Amino acid sequence: MNEQWTETRLLEYIGQIELPDAKLAQVAQAHSDQLTKPPGSLGKLEAVAAQLAGITGRLWPDLSQRTVVIMAGDHGVCEEGISAFPQSVTPQMVYNFLQGGAAVNVLARAAGANVACVDVGVAAELEHERLISRKIMHGTHNMAKGAAMSRMQAVQAIAVGIEVVESLFAQGSRMFATGEMGIGNTTASAAIVSVMTGISAQQAAGRGTGISDTMLEHKAAVIKRAIAVNAPRVDDPLDVLGKLGGLEIAGLVGVIIAAAKLHCPVVIDGYISTAAALIAAALAPSCKPYIIASHQSQEQGHVHALAALGLAPCIQLDLRVGEGTGAVLCFHFIDAALKLMQEMATFASAGVDGKHADQ
Amino acid sequence: MNEQWTETRLLEYIGQIELPDAKLAQVAQAHSDQLTKPPGSLGKLEAVAAQLAGITGRLWPDLSQRTVVIMAGDHGVCEEGISAFPQSVTPQMVYNFLQGGAAVNVLARAAGANVACVDVGVAAELEHERLISRKIMHGTHNMAKGAAMSRMQAVQAIAVGIEVVESLFAQGSRMFATGEMGIGNTTASAAIVSVMTGISAQQAAGRGTGISDTMLEHKAAVIKRAIAVNAPRVDDPLDVLGKLGGLEIAGLVGVIIAAAKLHCPVVIDGYISTAAALIAAALAPSCKPYIIASHQSQEQGHVHALAALGLAPCIQLDLRVGEGTGAVLCFHFIDAALKLMQEMATFASAGVDGKHADQ
Repeated sequence: MNEQWTETRLLEYIGQIELPDAKLAQVAQAHSDQLTKPPGSLGKLEAVAAQLAGITGRLWPDLSQRTVVIMAGDHGVCEEGISAFPQSVTPQMVYNFLQGGAAVNVLARAAGANVACVDVGVAAELEHERLISRKIMHGTHNMAKGAAMSRMQAVQAIAVGIEVVESLFAQGSRMFATGEMGIGNTTASAAIVSVMTGISAQQAAGRGTGISDTMLEHKAAVIKRAIAVNAPRVDDPLDVLGKLGGLEIAGLVGVIIAAAKLHCPVVIDGYISTAAALIAAALAPSCKPYIIASHQSQEQGHVHALAALGLAPCIQLDLRVGEGTGAVLCFHFIDAALKLMQEMATFASAGVDGKHADQ
Repeated sequence: MNEQWTETRLLEYIGQIELPDAKLAQVAQAHSDQLTKPPGSLGKLEAVAAQLAGITGRLWPDLSQRTVVIMAGDHGVCEEGISAFPQSVTPQMVYNFLQGGAAVNVLARAAGANVACVDVGVAAELEHERLISRKIMHGTHNMAKGAAMSRMQAVQAIAVGIEVVESLFAQGSRMFATGEMGIGNTTASAAIVSVMTGISAQQAAGRGTGISDTMLEHKAAVIKRAIAVNAPRVDDPLDVLGKLGGLEIAGLVGVIIAAAKLHCPVVIDGYISTAAALIAAALAPSCKPYIIASHQSQEQGHVHALAALGLAPCIQLDLRVGEGTGAVLCFHFIDAALKLMQEMATFASAGVDGKHADQ
């Protein structure tokens, strides 16, 4: 990192986020209404096209350069035995991302997206020419016993996300997807979602990578304990993030904030990304119009987290693999939305009659 | 058409549909379980990959040649005033498809799919070098006053769908999507869905291209009247199809049946396509494993129709444009499913640890 980010500097950065261009969004919608289809019948594709015009300030933005940013970090809470997989999988999967063999790599190639993999807090030494090494600490502390990280470390991890996106933007990326890797991070996300939305630990806890009924009960109890031990303040998102968060979740908060600051759409993935979005939206409400929801995860708390953000998913594939997979799949729909606006005939150009006058 | 299809010939054709290869589907699933992701975590993408192996008899089928078959037909019931758009839009939109300016054309290009447009019953003379002209009649009769078509005409329209798909298969197509155009066809579809699933006319009737509350009530009343006047026999799908169906719906029944016969996946679109699938599955239960559901339409009866088929949609874009748009968008997911199976690393190849022994 070039220089230390303070909380003040972060708030100043957030203060620079501008509202989308509502007028241009209306122009896009007006164009859409001229296309040969019943008004509104392309549903979210029309809404997204208008949203993209507002976000980018261009009617037909060029979003061909896009990146899924995978933040990787480990979780001290793993020592409570809340995951089906050992912590060793986090660094192993980071190498898998870097070698192009993970699910998100395959889907990113298919959607014309780059994969940027960031070590913001993996509990192992990692080295690879394509790895973006920005480790804040070697995994968080066990949130069931105390704060996962300090407030300052949370700010630093957010700053990593901001700086990575600023750098990718400088290289040409104009659209971002949030991805993550970190064994134990559905537990941290569930704790955040529980605090930020008010649902119980039981409702927020899901099966993650595939745990048994007994372990699911245990996981909910650990989450409940973590919240009781830390007493995070719901009106202070940095407090919640530091006490319960993962470093990769904090990194994604930065990704979302920076995308908004740079007038780029940011597509969020599943439960972990949505937990990050809840923190980002609380910290910086102005970033909300820049967020696009992708899929409905199998994690049972996800539907509540999305609802709290006023977002509706467009993909129902029962995914629970994370990594940014659902967000990258959503790029196909975003491309479709833009192509429809640019390539469809209008009622006038195609000589198609409009609605009955009385409708 | 080369020669007349009788009901007997149709039933013989249906009798030749084979079951998918369950063993190969298991082999595909076993391979999927070796890939670097929690077992089952790719959700419907894994399920579809296994389904495709079973359908095609190949682990990694080449589905790069694919066609959306758009059946177009008109509806006598339009004279009851049930649509927001005039009937003139049907032939106008057919020309729009042929010129490449409709929503489905844009989405088909983006998904590498061909568009085949078939006049199976438009109430206008149409001529175009790319139009497949197989008109059975100039639109159906008004189902609110009697049968929409004869049983024989329904068989002929199904045969059109079969012959079109057989011809496209001969030219190399290995995957199909169902599309349609016909002002008034959500009314016919709602009548079919009501009879085939047992939901009321009120539950089955939706807003189509965008009608008012008053017209929605009127539409439901017309559907109720059509069912009362015709008294279709639910255990005789050809009776239901002939009395309430559209020619394009019958054509799509043929598309689905032929795809199954030829061991090709067939992706169904929204409400009209699903009404056709209900008839196809009743007539030929063996075609069901060849069907893939795409999106959840805004038409309120669609969720019941899909449930009756035991299908779950993977796209939630609030589409209600028809044409095959949702089905064509689904091709991206099918491509993704196949690429994941072929390109992902295995736990062994990537050196990633598996689950804890006790999980």
